[in-house]
Amino acid sequence: MTIRALVFDVFGTLVDWRSSIAQDAKTHLSPLGLNTDWGAFADAWRAQYQPAMEKIRSGQRGFCKLDELHRDNLDTVLKELGWQHVDESTRQTLNLCWHHLEQWSEVQAGLAQLRKSFILAPCSNGHIALMVHLARHNQWHWDAITGAEIAKDYKPQAVVYQASAAALGCLPEETMMVAAHSDDLLAAAHAGLKTAFIARPDEHGPGLGESVARTPVDYSASDLLDLARQLGCK
Amino acid sequence: MTIRALVFDVFGTLVDWRSSIAQDAKTHLSPLGLNTDWGAFADAWRAQYQPAMEKIRSGQRGFCKLDELHRDNLDTVLKELGWQHVDESTRQTLNLCWHHLEQWSEVQAGLAQLRKSFILAPCSNGHIALMVHLARHNQWHWDAITGAEIAKDYKPQAVVYQASAAALGCLPEETMMVAAHSDDLLAAAHAGLKTAFIARPDEHGPGLGESVARTPVDYSASDLLDLARQLGCK
Repeated sequence: MTIRALVFDVFGTLVDWRSSIAQDAKTHLSPLGLNTDWGAFADAWRAQYQPAMEKIRSGQRGFCKLDELHRDNLDTVLKELGWQHVDESTRQTLNLCWHHLEQWSEVQAGLAQLRKSFILAPCSNGHIALMVHLARHNQWHWDAITGAEIAKDYKPQAVVYQASAAALGCLPEETMMVAAHSDDLLAAAHAGLKTAFIARPDEHGPGLGESVARTPVDYSASDLLDLARQLGCK
Repeated sequence: MTIRALVFDVFGTLVDWRSSIAQDAKTHLSPLGLNTDWGAFADAWRAQYQPAMEKIRSGQRGFCKLDELHRDNLDTVLKELGWQHVDESTRQTLNLCWHHLEQWSEVQAGLAQLRKSFILAPCSNGHIALMVHLARHNQWHWDAITGAEIAKDYKPQAVVYQASAAALGCLPEETMMVAAHSDDLLAAAHAGLKTAFIARPDEHGPGLGESVARTPVDYSASDLLDLARQLGCK
């Protein structure tokens, strides 16, 4: 079965969320006299991500957009740091930092190469507006925005991968999930999609990301340009 | 309230569905020895469009993608013409003609101008895959695909306009519906959106489209480039 569409994880696979959030948190909080290890701040915020989504995946909480979960999680982190006095406006600004994260260096060129041969869409837990803003910020050209919001559930639920393929008019086996995370690819494979692993060894700090897939995959690449070469994109 | 996003009707407003369908029907059916007034064939197919959607809007039928309605309607038209012998493969090919309709001449340049200042998305009754294919065929760059499929209902139901604005992270009043059809704009205005009318006097054949809005609108333009000028896009 020919691959017709590529769907992408975004946080970690296309953007360096950790460095971006660390930088933005420093920019907005240090003028208030607040200081900490900003990489650790980003990690603490991200650590709340899976537990927050799990409430929705398990049915404890109805579907809501990622902005809402990010905001709840930010409030938790600020409380843990004893920074409850951070004002509402600063919290809102910080929460929107997830809308303009910086991409890994080859992503724009890699997506442009891949788009010559495949339909491209994000299959992220980020909602449509967040994906639109990230694409504008980093100059990506998606064919459509798929992922959690159209499925009304969060990865790694199978419905998110399957609804994304279906929205693009593709069967799961005509669709390849591209991600830097083995658990995401394992779930995508279980949902019937092809899989491509992208090494992002520095996602969680230097040398602390995944550089080798921990699950069988159809393709394994050092970055998006390497994947484009392996797929024969001209 | 500032306008942040423009959402577009597609069939008639951005693409010349009638000429495209007439040409494609002739291409696929005349080799079978079938001949008719191909513009009238396109009109007959399109005439089934509103009644088919009305079954979904009224709750008589669950939501399905436009491909499915187009196919039912094609079967009806072929039967009316006494052309029941047209084979399954030809019917499937004909049905996909809606995925590669030709744009009005200024549309690609107009959308590119408008995209410099606004988030752009279709708000069509066409589903996501159909919109993806039309965009590829005509080289449009949407920020996201909104419309009937994400709302799970068909225009002119208010939810379609409102869900499209919400998906883009905009309030209805921050979103402007762009269409060549007064009824579409009237419904969008009732749903809280701003409205822009585009004249397409030849949509239904020479001089048989709307050249002037029959409802109050915020902007009225001769084409998308004129709209871009009125909106100050540089």
